[in-house]
Amino acid sequence: MKLATQLNGTPDGELIVVSRDNARCISAGDVAATLQYVMENWDACEPVLQTISDELNAGGGDQLDLATLAAPLPRAWQWLDGSAYESHGNLMDKVFGIDKPKTERPLMYQGTSDRFYGPTEDVVIPDESLGIDFEGEFGVIVDAVPMGTDAATAMKHIRLVVQINDWSLRTLAAPEMKTGFGWVQAKPASSMAPFAVTPDELGDEWRNARVCCDLLISWNGNRFGAANGEPMGFGFHELVAHAARTRHLVAGTVIGSGTVSNENFRECGSSCIAERRGIEIVDDGEAKTEFMRFGVRVRMEGKLKNGAAPFGVIDQKVVSL
Amino acid sequence: MKLATQLNGTPDGELIVVSRDNARCISAGDVAATLQYVMENWDACEPVLQTISDELNAGGGDQLDLATLAAPLPRAWQWLDGSAYESHGNLMDKVFGIDKPKTERPLMYQGTSDRFYGPTEDVVIPDESLGIDFEGEFGVIVDAVPMGTDAATAMKHIRLVVQINDWSLRTLAAPEMKTGFGWVQAKPASSMAPFAVTPDELGDEWRNARVCCDLLISWNGNRFGAANGEPMGFGFHELVAHAARTRHLVAGTVIGSGTVSNENFRECGSSCIAERRGIEIVDDGEAKTEFMRFGVRVRMEGKLKNGAAPFGVIDQKVVSL
Repeated sequence: MKLATQLNGTPDGELIVVSRDNARCISAGDVAATLQYVMENWDACEPVLQTISDELNAGGGDQLDLATLAAPLPRAWQWLDGSAYESHGNLMDKVFGIDKPKTERPLMYQGTSDRFYGPTEDVVIPDESLGIDFEGEFGVIVDAVPMGTDAATAMKHIRLVVQINDWSLRTLAAPEMKTGFGWVQAKPASSMAPFAVTPDELGDEWRNARVCCDLLISWNGNRFGAANGEPMGFGFHELVAHAARTRHLVAGTVIGSGTVSNENFRECGSSCIAERRGIEIVDDGEAKTEFMRFGVRVRMEGKLKNGAAPFGVIDQKVVSL
Repeated sequence: MKLATQLNGTPDGELIVVSRDNARCISAGDVAATLQYVMENWDACEPVLQTISDELNAGGGDQLDLATLAAPLPRAWQWLDGSAYESHGNLMDKVFGIDKPKTERPLMYQGTSDRFYGPTEDVVIPDESLGIDFEGEFGVIVDAVPMGTDAATAMKHIRLVVQINDWSLRTLAAPEMKTGFGWVQAKPASSMAPFAVTPDELGDEWRNARVCCDLLISWNGNRFGAANGEPMGFGFHELVAHAARTRHLVAGTVIGSGTVSNENFRECGSSCIAERRGIEIVDDGEAKTEFMRFGVRVRMEGKLKNGAAPFGVIDQKVVSL
């Protein structure tokens, strides 16, 4: 089933269930007012929401107006973002001059989660010179995960899959990384595609806790990347277990994959500008591609082999504060 | 005025106003059910809460039962912790072998904020061998701070001052730092002393956006540290402005000072075990003080020159998962 959140003037919006073809919806207000409530009460809510989903997929419901949609989870108590694609991580380390020790453990940072931008909302950045970059990713939303949960058990806590743009300010990123404290200024609020889906909506393109579909990215109207989500060095279940090692994960915690990246990035393209610039530096000795400018749009759409876009589209423009 | 939160079975508890001598209280339920609500509606709530505070300090109210208290803010949308005491930072860098570039900017990481332990709650850690450490700090709670707010303006957004124990797992901390992503596993949930106070409650011991009182720390019944909060390299207003550079700070954001530390730490003691171990390594070539064990308590109490403890006491024991 597919869930979304309609703007209604409150911080958490109003939960709706959406048809598989993204065309129709039914309010879930009688079952659960918000997605956060669903995450806190998954077992009770899921069967009723599934019934609504079945009704929608049989042709019921009302026309969905995409313009009314917020992020499916407009705010969360916790957002932990991994960096699970080795082709991206290795290149970034080289380019940023980061000498990270080799580790068998996932990389992860905690980012701002008190708001996620909706799929078509303007993204406000204070300064065009900060190296404005997008990072196309996939993510999962879990119900409550007890501290110490192992990866196999963590799999069962993955309730929803989402598509995310983890906005990054590259001029600030490398200096913050070198402090060892991680990113604060370099990571403004992230954006979510409109639909949060249960893993079964991805069919066999949800494999081994990975989203195995292409993430199509267009920047300023031109195709920029079409990397496939499969080659994560750690599956989402392993990222969840990593996050839960020393803390209980509150229901509604969002866990991200990090920038989707494939080894053949020279052919399939990249999911962030920094990666393309890194390739240019490696290949040509200098970066030619500039970072984003105010007024320019980026579009992201995960696409299944059958052509469906399960998460819908993120299509946003960056604007000045 | 002093605010606290009573456990009532809900995640945010029930707001109470507390007398200056920490002895009596009046429920603030009619004005604002929770501290989060107050932070979101400061201008409307503050005068009414101040009236209740005046009534308390004139002798009104009911006996306060400390055992009923949660953290003043039992959960927050955002917790950003600085590391503003240079005597601590310089020593830690030396001991951990971190070669941080010298920077004119505050150090800051984002930690888990979906729960703060109450002042006497047991602290659950999964493994005694993780280098269990306390970090005594001060912190502030702000109302909504717009992106780009400067330090002078940020001063006006500092509404409440709190005392915090930022629990740390040292065995995990250095490896996570070396990834550049900052801490996730090394930083479990933090604890708060029971009372959040407006800056005026600190009299002239609130100076230049610093809490200029001693933080008395006892570990396993023995005095461990009595560092003074004054020598922050950056004031809280500067930490708030740093945090707000590229994001709006949601009302109720908590900003921490980092471990309170003084240059004369050999005399006044330390606010975390890692600092004492660092001194031992520098002075004697090896650390002799062990980290915390299950079943052992740590007690923290900020004390004004007049003997008052404005934030009350954190007194907790560490227990196994």
